[in-house]
Amino acid sequence: MRFTSEQRFDDGVLERGFTLGEIPGILWTPASAPAPLILLGHPGGLRGMYPRLAARARHAAAEGFAAATIELPWSGDRPRSTTAEQARADLHRALAAGEPIDDEIVDRLVLPLVDRAAPEWRAALDALLPLPEIGGPVGYAGGVIAIGVRLAVVEPRISAALLFAGSFVPRTMFEQARQVTIPLQVLLQWDDEGNDRQLALDLFDAFGSKEKTLHANMGGHTGVPEFEGDAANRFFARHLK
Amino acid sequence: MRFTSEQRFDDGVLERGFTLGEIPGILWTPASAPAPLILLGHPGGLRGMYPRLAARARHAAAEGFAAATIELPWSGDRPRSTTAEQARADLHRALAAGEPIDDEIVDRLVLPLVDRAAPEWRAALDALLPLPEIGGPVGYAGGVIAIGVRLAVVEPRISAALLFAGSFVPRTMFEQARQVTIPLQVLLQWDDEGNDRQLALDLFDAFGSKEKTLHANMGGHTGVPEFEGDAANRFFARHLK
Repeated sequence: MRFTSEQRFDDGVLERGFTLGEIPGILWTPASAPAPLILLGHPGGLRGMYPRLAARARHAAAEGFAAATIELPWSGDRPRSTTAEQARADLHRALAAGEPIDDEIVDRLVLPLVDRAAPEWRAALDALLPLPEIGGPVGYAGGVIAIGVRLAVVEPRISAALLFAGSFVPRTMFEQARQVTIPLQVLLQWDDEGNDRQLALDLFDAFGSKEKTLHANMGGHTGVPEFEGDAANRFFARHLK
Repeated sequence: MRFTSEQRFDDGVLERGFTLGEIPGILWTPASAPAPLILLGHPGGLRGMYPRLAARARHAAAEGFAAATIELPWSGDRPRSTTAEQARADLHRALAAGEPIDDEIVDRLVLPLVDRAAPEWRAALDALLPLPEIGGPVGYAGGVIAIGVRLAVVEPRISAALLFAGSFVPRTMFEQARQVTIPLQVLLQWDDEGNDRQLALDLFDAFGSKEKTLHANMGGHTGVPEFEGDAANRFFARHLK
């Protein structure tokens, strides 16, 4: 891991860009150290997601958490994959035509992404956890929910996860969901037209965790209420401190 | 309103029993006054519910809220109603036989209760709000959800409601739910066998409020996680302060 940029905010939070091999990432650390780490999931495209990710990271830092994110495979400045582009094009064509989305398209879109992204997030953990500013258990917060589910199952260093419900969940993910045992908080935007509400409820039902909480709110896809940032901090404070 | 008993707890909370005509009730006030008031709903039977109600009230008091509750019609030490007893017996018989619960039984059980209880809660507000220890907007927290819905529609002094999802919601309640516009937080015990989950989700969907949040948790009917007490305090802190 190589740090490529650095800035400190008024609130004492240090933001550093880094690269992990070819993968760009960002690390935010609070003034208080060592801090438990929260991995910030997102749908890909760090540059466009930056304002929201930085806001989430600084909100978490106010509660004493470090936060880190990496670019997704085939997104942002990373090399494209023709098969991923094809799957995305097929999805968008089906959505535009108002057709039902075939499981086969979802599998072709999401499964390779999860297979590639999960080991990258784990490699990021390998690189981040030895830093003196980082210490304690790790959380995962955000979408892509299929990546969060995979990590919750395969990565024992992740102790709690805040998952953003989304559509396009491969059928095999339900089997994985049953294997999840860590505490979960699942965010669902109730009136998000681009979201399959019933699928999100079914997935919540499938999780094997003894402690799982669903927070459903109004406000559309990007309208998660500000108070959920506080609720996220309290969820992680219960499980990472 | 006449105070009938008084005790002060270590945390400075003053608990006073009262009667409002024939209706017994309890008022808890924090050391800091005047305090916004939260009405604590419950399924009836103050004596049996006391430990849980007192715990909820003292948790609210720690955040600076007063809390009050009154006995439900035909419950606890109050005179019984033969029609209510008959409806309850019919319900229990159908439940024991594993029969589907007829809408007619639910209407006969819940509608007269709501019709009688709602004016009593409003009369309690009339009596409580002039007290010097009480000030600011009012919240309602608890079951019976049909009573909470009715109060949210007809009582303009109630500014926010935390509703406990339950079964046995009369069909007409869905029409009322659409008329609710105050901020809501709805608690649903996801794996509560005595609870109709889909009905609770449908009712949440029906509420007309622009701000409504559903919190679904594991743990059965009486297993609401302790952290929901904190979440309740933060919900009311946003809306009553």
